[in-house]
Amino acid sequence: MDRIKTGVPGLDEIMSGGIPQGQTVLLSGTAGTGKTILASEFIYMGAKKYKEPGVYLSFEEAPESIKKNSLNFGWDFSPLEKDGIFSFVKYDPYHVDDIVNHLEGRIREISAKRVVVDSVSALSFYLREDANFRRMLFNLSNVLEKLDCTSILISEILPGSTGLSRHGLAEFVADAAVVLYYNRVDASFSRAIQVWKMRGSSHSERLHPYKITESGITVYPKEEAFIDAKH
Amino acid sequence: MDRIKTGVPGLDEIMSGGIPQGQTVLLSGTAGTGKTILASEFIYMGAKKYKEPGVYLSFEEAPESIKKNSLNFGWDFSPLEKDGIFSFVKYDPYHVDDIVNHLEGRIREISAKRVVVDSVSALSFYLREDANFRRMLFNLSNVLEKLDCTSILISEILPGSTGLSRHGLAEFVADAAVVLYYNRVDASFSRAIQVWKMRGSSHSERLHPYKITESGITVYPKEEAFIDAKH
Amino acid sequence: MDRIKTGVPGLDEIMSGGIPQGQTVLLSGTAGTGKTILASEFIYMGAKKYKEPGVYLSFEEAPESIKKNSLNFGWDFSPLEKDGIFSFVKYDPYHVDDIVNHLEGRIREISAKRVVVDSVSALSFYLREDANFRRMLFNLSNVLEKLDCTSILISEILPGSTGLSRHGLAEFVADAAVVLYYNRVDASFSRAIQVWKMRGSSHSERLHPYKITESGITVYPKEEAFIDAKH
Amino acid sequence: MDRIKTGVPGLDEIMSGGIPQGQTVLLSGTAGTGKTILASEFIYMGAKKYKEPGVYLSFEEAPESIKKNSLNFGWDFSPLEKDGIFSFVKYDPYHVDDIVNHLEGRIREISAKRVVVDSVSALSFYLREDANFRRMLFNLSNVLEKLDCTSILISEILPGSTGLSRHGLAEFVADAAVVLYYNRVDASFSRAIQVWKMRGSSHSERLHPYKITESGITVYPKEEAFIDAKH
Amino acid sequence: MDRIKTGVPGLDEIMSGGIPQGQTVLLSGTAGTGKTILASEFIYMGAKKYKEPGVYLSFEEAPESIKKNSLNFGWDFSPLEKDGIFSFVKYDPYHVDDIVNHLEGRIREISAKRVVVDSVSALSFYLREDANFRRMLFNLSNVLEKLDCTSILISEILPGSTGLSRHGLAEFVADAAVVLYYNRVDASFSRAIQVWKMRGSSHSERLHPYKITESGITVYPKEEAFIDAKH
Amino acid sequence: MDRIKTGVPGLDEIMSGGIPQGQTVLLSGTAGTGKTILASEFIYMGAKKYKEPGVYLSFEEAPESIKKNSLNFGWDFSPLEKDGIFSFVKYDPYHVDDIVNHLEGRIREISAKRVVVDSVSALSFYLREDANFRRMLFNLSNVLEKLDCTSILISEILPGSTGLSRHGLAEFVADAAVVLYYNRVDASFSRAIQVWKMRGSSHSERLHPYKITESGITVYPKEEAFIDAKH
Repeated sequence: MDRIKTGVPGLDEIMSGGIPQGQTVLLSGTAGTGKTILASEFIYMGAKKYKEPGVYLSFEEAPESIKKNSLNFGWDFSPLEKDGIFSFVKYDPYHVDDIVNHLEGRIREISAKRVVVDSVSALSFYLREDANFRRMLFNLSNVLEKLDCTSILISEILPGSTGLSRHGLAEFVADAAVVLYYNRVDASFSRAIQVWKMRGSSHSERLHPYKITESGITVYPKEEAFIDAKH
Repeated sequence: MDRIKTGVPGLDEIMSGGIPQGQTVLLSGTAGTGKTILASEFIYMGAKKYKEPGVYLSFEEAPESIKKNSLNFGWDFSPLEKDGIFSFVKYDPYHVDDIVNHLEGRIREISAKRVVVDSVSALSFYLREDANFRRMLFNLSNVLEKLDCTSILISEILPGSTGLSRHGLAEFVADAAVVLYYNRVDASFSRAIQVWKMRGSSHSERLHPYKITESGITVYPKEEAFIDAKH
Repeated sequence: MDRIKTGVPGLDEIMSGGIPQGQTVLLSGTAGTGKTILASEFIYMGAKKYKEPGVYLSFEEAPESIKKNSLNFGWDFSPLEKDGIFSFVKYDPYHVDDIVNHLEGRIREISAKRVVVDSVSALSFYLREDANFRRMLFNLSNVLEKLDCTSILISEILPGSTGLSRHGLAEFVADAAVVLYYNRVDASFSRAIQVWKMRGSSHSERLHPYKITESGITVYPKEEAFIDAKH
Repeated sequence: MDRIKTGVPGLDEIMSGGIPQGQTVLLSGTAGTGKTILASEFIYMGAKKYKEPGVYLSFEEAPESIKKNSLNFGWDFSPLEKDGIFSFVKYDPYHVDDIVNHLEGRIREISAKRVVVDSVSALSFYLREDANFRRMLFNLSNVLEKLDCTSILISEILPGSTGLSRHGLAEFVADAAVVLYYNRVDASFSRAIQVWKMRGSSHSERLHPYKITESGITVYPKEEAFIDAKH
Repeated sequence: MDRIKTGVPGLDEIMSGGIPQGQTVLLSGTAGTGKTILASEFIYMGAKKYKEPGVYLSFEEAPESIKKNSLNFGWDFSPLEKDGIFSFVKYDPYHVDDIVNHLEGRIREISAKRVVVDSVSALSFYLREDANFRRMLFNLSNVLEKLDCTSILISEILPGSTGLSRHGLAEFVADAAVVLYYNRVDASFSRAIQVWKMRGSSHSERLHPYKITESGITVYPKEEAFIDAKH
Repeated sequence: MDRIKTGVPGLDEIMSGGIPQGQTVLLSGTAGTGKTILASEFIYMGAKKYKEPGVYLSFEEAPESIKKNSLNFGWDFSPLEKDGIFSFVKYDPYHVDDIVNHLEGRIREISAKRVVVDSVSALSFYLREDANFRRMLFNLSNVLEKLDCTSILISEILPGSTGLSRHGLAEFVADAAVVLYYNRVDASFSRAIQVWKMRGSSHSERLHPYKITESGITVYPKEEAFIDAKH
């Protein structure tokens, strides 16, 4: 089994060496847990360090905004775009039927190996019926697998909700599921990350602390987090 | 009462020797508990070790994907397919009315004795009304019994939900119900399996640990699991 | 007040001697608690031991299936059918309007004194509005009382749900209510039975253990169960 | 303030001497708590002991059934009916618009001073919108007050539900609210009664035990119940 | 900031001297907490003691009924009505569009300075959409402010519900919010009052006991209540 | 990263020096937590102390009302309005399509650098579908960013609800999220503030006490609050 290095310090260790190549990872968390940061780091490190072209598909946030925020962590996407190894796709989820085709076109253009979809929750609001949303997730997942892309699908979670994603569907479609927590311990709050699922692979079965620093996200694979995770 | 060996180490012991022949077992669990692995093992071992032809019906995941993942556990379905003792059926649940007929045809083709339906949850999203979904489950169950197939119906469970299946219906239709848990014990997580119901048979009334290893799922029938199972 | 012996060892003791004649008993429980076994035992013992003809009305499960499972407990319904003191009615709940008439006909045919309806939950899915389901339950109940039948209405319960039946309606219509529990005590599970209500009669106000053995259900009227029953 | 003696031993004591004349009391409880028994006792004692004519309005249960059950407690309604001081009204709630008029007619016929409505929950299922049900409750309540009747409105409660009635509306319309509990204390169950509200009057603010005996309901005004009441 | 004395003993103390003039106070509580009593006392004391004309708008309960109950506390509204310093308005909430105009007319008639609306919950059932109910509350609130009336809006709360009013809307519209509690402490119940919000003013941040006595409601501003308030 | 001083004592300290310029901050809290006060202080201090023109957009509350309440804290908006560095916009959310355009016009008129939207919850009731509300929030957010405004979006929270805003959507759109709490500690209540999220910036990860005093809101950045915050 080939594995893709995420480039996020410590994350590959708790995923038994990285994301199995071609798999789709659900990345979910409540507001402010750093989902976009982690996904940006995955794409940036992929293009910059591992020379794997990447596509970042955003349904709501403007490319400029994500690129500007990434600069805070020292990740400059502009030269990568010019070199044709990074592509930012902004797509209005209102035109829901064309999304997968459009994404496929953009992936083929730069022979992308890494893809981020930010976020499947945004998509869900336009696909009112669960059956439609689930079908869309499978279509997306199949195309990404067909194109041999290793992908991150971002999902929101509401505090206190059950399920590993906003609607409790994406975790059954994705090959792997990683959840970011920001929970209370006494009067302060701590961040923790957990791998819930990895198809065809073992993974850490513990809660690990992570931090958001000036250079992005760092996971501590040898430490345990003692937050009161709901799930 | 004749019993079918699942071929999953330890599982037959907590089911009083195996699944009563011709019965339908609901297998449910949250994302990442290994439902597909256990069901694949049941079909593979059936065909390979016990010479019982098997059909694996998938509504969403591609045959290639399940077969590829099975190879990780050393289960190669391709020669079994060639020998006509295994058949993988991919069916779009959108054409919901024809499912049972289609499955019956495929079962008869290879005189299958074991069947997996992966998953009845996927099916449920296309049968919006509970009455329709329940009727479908009974039709499915009756046909499987008529054809003398021993079957596993996979169902998702949302963390924290009540019921032994996603919609709280399948557990009343199936002859037996087995649930896979992945719950927290302090800062790490443990896996546990429980037999909730077996028509016409006694069964273990305890929570048992299980593991997902390189050779598939192993249940520990003599040990107790101390997870905090909701149900 | 005349009482009907259920024929289930120990059950009559916690019901002050049996079911008051002509009353309707709601029997509910989660999946796998043995509702169908208890109801079958009630009908079988009625016909065999107490010479009271009985009708078993099933909305979903096939007669063959229930009869086959009953054989596991040594209850052979076939000779009783031939003798005209047992009748198995399979009725498609889709034709909802005719159910009560149809059942009345079948009761009159063999002058049945005992009736089982398996299950009112199945019925409820076809009578979408609560008002309709409630009206149906009262019609059913009135006809059964008019025909002087002592009856068991089976209802499902979802784990963790409130109410003594799936929809929280049948317990207000039935004369009596008995609930079967299968709940956790530490790492293993225990079975318990409780009489919640008996019109015009006192009853045990405690939780009692019961077992499902090779000869059917046995209630222990002198022992207390210490499960953590929700209700 | 004139007060009406309920005739239920102990109940008047915890209601500061009885129900204020002309008031409407909501009587609610889960299945099997004895709501119908208490209401029957109120009407029977009214007619028999206090010479106050009474009307019992039932939406679902047959008069014969209630009268038969009352005989278990030694309450024979038949001679009272003949004497014209008791009237049993069975009304199909399907014809919802006419209920109040019809009831008014029957009250005037025998100059009733006591009325039972069994149950407003049954009524609610036919008045789907909360606004309609609430309006109906107020109409009912106004007519009963206009006719100077002291009344009991019966309501179901689902175990674990919030509100003092099935839909959380009747307790805001009624002048007084009394709840019957049947809750667990360790492995057995206990009955308790509580007065929640009495317009223009003080009342006991404690939980009191009550029993259902051969002669009806007895409340113990000097004892406290230690059940774990949800509310 | 001018303040209006409520006239309810102890209440002004926990509201920093009274209700800021021209403000709208939400008064909510479960059934039987004395909302109508407190509101009646506010209007009666206003007219009688502080010579401020008042209007009591009721959507459901009859004027006669509220006036009769008020007599129990020694509050006789009839002479105040004759003197033209009190006006009781009964309005059918079915004619929802005209309510504010109608109320304005009645306020102007007697130059009312105090207004009670009993209850906004009753109103809500006729304004099905939250947007409509919210708009109505703001219209009401604006007119009351324009007319320089100090007002109490009554709202029901269901036990165990979240929000400070039945629908969780009125507390965001009102200038101030006061909640009445009736909660369990061991086997008996206690009453407590809490000021949750007062625009432009400090207020007690504790739970205080209150009593319903023969002369109305009394709040104990120097004592603390130890009930288990949900909120 | 340039930062905008809120002008609220202590708040900038727990936000690493202030709001990153051009960002949108979600400010949420239950009724009575002082959301409007904090937002008014932000706008007033901006115009008065930092010479940054500000627009306050209100969907429900009248400008006069907010201005009057602000005077209690010594904030007089009238001279600022005359000087053209403050503008109060009252907009009926019924005309939902034009809101963003209208706001943009008003911002450009005075070259506003600070904006308050009070409240997005009010808006949500007119945009029934979550997809529409979410799209509106993104439009709003994009326009505010385009105009380089640093903004506060106010949202209500229901006690006990999950999510950091009334509908669990705004926290995923806003760049930052700050929640105001008013929770119980024994028999009294305490106020606490927490920064949940700040895009591209670190922030305090603790609960801090705050007070509403005569001169507005004061946050205590060096102290910890020990309330029992749900989230």
